[in-house]
Amino acid sequence: MKVLVLGGDGYLGWPTALHLSARGYDVTVVDNLVRREYDREMGVDSLVPIAPLQDRVTRWEQLSGHAVDVRIGNLTDAAFTYEVVAEAQPDAIVHFGEQRSAPYSMIDREHAVYTQVNNVVGNLNVMYAIQETNPDIHLVKLGTMGEYGYPNIDIEEGFIEITHKGRTDVVPYPKQPGSFYHLSKVHDSHNIMFGCRIWGLRATDLNQGIVYGQSTDETDLDPVLATRFDYDGVFGTVLNRFCVQAVTGHPLTVYGAGGQTRGMLNIRDTLACITLAIENPAERGEFRVFNQFTESFSVRDMAQMVKKVCPSRVDIAEGLANPRVEHEEHYFHAANTKLLDLGLEPHLLTDEVIAGMLELVERHRDRVDVRAIAPTVQWRSSASRLTTAGESEDSSFLAT
Amino acid sequence: MKVLVLGGDGYLGWPTALHLSARGYDVTVVDNLVRREYDREMGVDSLVPIAPLQDRVTRWEQLSGHAVDVRIGNLTDAAFTYEVVAEAQPDAIVHFGEQRSAPYSMIDREHAVYTQVNNVVGNLNVMYAIQETNPDIHLVKLGTMGEYGYPNIDIEEGFIEITHKGRTDVVPYPKQPGSFYHLSKVHDSHNIMFGCRIWGLRATDLNQGIVYGQSTDETDLDPVLATRFDYDGVFGTVLNRFCVQAVTGHPLTVYGAGGQTRGMLNIRDTLACITLAIENPAERGEFRVFNQFTESFSVRDMAQMVKKVCPSRVDIAEGLANPRVEHEEHYFHAANTKLLDLGLEPHLLTDEVIAGMLELVERHRDRVDVRAIAPTVQWRSSASRLTTAGESEDSSFLAT
Repeated sequence: MKVLVLGGDGYLGWPTALHLSARGYDVTVVDNLVRREYDREMGVDSLVPIAPLQDRVTRWEQLSGHAVDVRIGNLTDAAFTYEVVAEAQPDAIVHFGEQRSAPYSMIDREHAVYTQVNNVVGNLNVMYAIQETNPDIHLVKLGTMGEYGYPNIDIEEGFIEITHKGRTDVVPYPKQPGSFYHLSKVHDSHNIMFGCRIWGLRATDLNQGIVYGQSTDETDLDPVLATRFDYDGVFGTVLNRFCVQAVTGHPLTVYGAGGQTRGMLNIRDTLACITLAIENPAERGEFRVFNQFTESFSVRDMAQMVKKVCPSRVDIAEGLANPRVEHEEHYFHAANTKLLDLGLEPHLLTDEVIAGMLELVERHRDRVDVRAIAPTVQWRSSASRLTTAGESEDSSFLAT
Repeated sequence: MKVLVLGGDGYLGWPTALHLSARGYDVTVVDNLVRREYDREMGVDSLVPIAPLQDRVTRWEQLSGHAVDVRIGNLTDAAFTYEVVAEAQPDAIVHFGEQRSAPYSMIDREHAVYTQVNNVVGNLNVMYAIQETNPDIHLVKLGTMGEYGYPNIDIEEGFIEITHKGRTDVVPYPKQPGSFYHLSKVHDSHNIMFGCRIWGLRATDLNQGIVYGQSTDETDLDPVLATRFDYDGVFGTVLNRFCVQAVTGHPLTVYGAGGQTRGMLNIRDTLACITLAIENPAERGEFRVFNQFTESFSVRDMAQMVKKVCPSRVDIAEGLANPRVEHEEHYFHAANTKLLDLGLEPHLLTDEVIAGMLELVERHRDRVDVRAIAPTVQWRSSASRLTTAGESEDSSFLAT
């Protein structure tokens, strides 16, 4: 079975490509390597050094005997996208190939427009390439739990039954995304749902929570195969940031009230979910939505967990000014049974997992740039003046 | 009071500009004149001749004594958009400036991508220009009733209260749009709602039904002030098409079962609604949605009404293959009380109104190109081979 992994050089795309390759899938990685350019633009870097894509693929073939094809190009270039789909003739396309940082999309107008055009046009090109090449290809699209926002009712998996004024219907779950990035994913979801309806495409939209962890069976085989670990204010995620702060003796920074609650999952579960989705494809014409997370935690919870596990003394700085506009205490109860029904066996966020993350940070401690951690992008402003690590002498907000 | 009318050269933008100018508003029309280019691309033309924008404005000033400023440029050009907003310093921006044809957006990949990028990026630029110039500017954005699709429950005005598993919340009304054009409007609505939330923008989203009529107090003053009347398969609307078919002795073409039901309104009510929205602005931070239609009719109803009023014999051709993928018989009950509450006094679709439209067609009968009426764009195909009027000898579908 043949699979295209779009965005296969990224944090999750690369481990997914290896995971599928190890299981005998014929994998082609498609990427424009722009994730590495974002690092240069922001003046930050992955805590864990990452090898060039070509070196990764060569090492993987040496170790595993499995070849992974690589195609470098941009999904917004329709000719490239059509060509890749036509040549690879995949059974499934796993689509990670989008700009995936909320703060990056909120830097200013240019970054908001870039994010929406890059993501929406790339995804439209993939949809059209599938429709015109082979509408039987299963599109496995990465969305985000952030598409739903934080309503005061339970979040369902993509659709909700509503009874209103005596009539009942099942309709798409209403979306209240919290950044121009999250909005781009909502736009994608609407476009794909329509493609399933009019063309009979088959699609699985994986509304993923925040992924933590950097270790997988395949990437652990060799340092050249390692994937990213981001802790900076723009691409880093909160648990990674807390681990870096704990190890380097800085207080864990909780923005706002700390009650912001998010669905989360281990990187190993992302790989399992993608594999389950591919192995159990959507029907023709079906737009299927899975909520891809295993547990939920508040930011406050996460800080406490890291503090508890860290062997050295850790302080928590609470109630810092929140760069985002969001509910800081809210109801959160979201369904996530569809992947469990397909057989997902979750890896939970145990003390051992956090200890492993802290050890990873300790191992790469010399690469930590603490100045990169502070948020530099303000939701309330429409034009942030970015403080890249190399420019700033302190960690204060410099948004205009 | 100063108003920018984006898309002020179009079917509704132009009469809106005149209507506001006649009422003493200081009006600037912004347009890139691309609507006239679509005609050339499709090989079609407005039934009623339309004068160049500059001639329209000159004639209006001669007749009314009111000057209307004109700025030619593209909203996707951020520098232009920022400059126009900064120079005009408007109190309100009425935003008609988008590609507004569903079939045009469904021609092929290029037209789908063009429609979404043109509309979404133009609208993002307008939002950012407001936020960075003067967030007090009231954005009056034209949306469409087609954003909702055709659920089996009542359609509300933008938001719906849901009780689910014992909890209740008011959430954005779920959207099920039926073309890449309609999707672009849904994307816009989500983006604007977010702008109101994070920046405190004030916005009114007018989810408009299908507009009919070509006569307004201002455009009737002189043929140079006339607005468009579109009856072609791509930009024309169903009632206009039926009137042209009736006058020229062709059967009225009902695609599918004919039960497709749409909210509709007279062009005079569009002008009244825009004026009401401007005079009663949204609050800072408010994203307000009005459903802008006055009556609803099925396609079958409309054919019967035209047949009844037309003095000559009219046949109805029913059950023709439907180029769209849509429900052909469905529940439709949509709220539209908010504009009525503000004082809207509807002009209904009476026999006299239809008779007036038939007379208009009769007057311009020599300009009718019946070959332009047939649908050339197929929803089920992703690549239509367009038959422009100049190429085709018959009216059959030539979609590939």
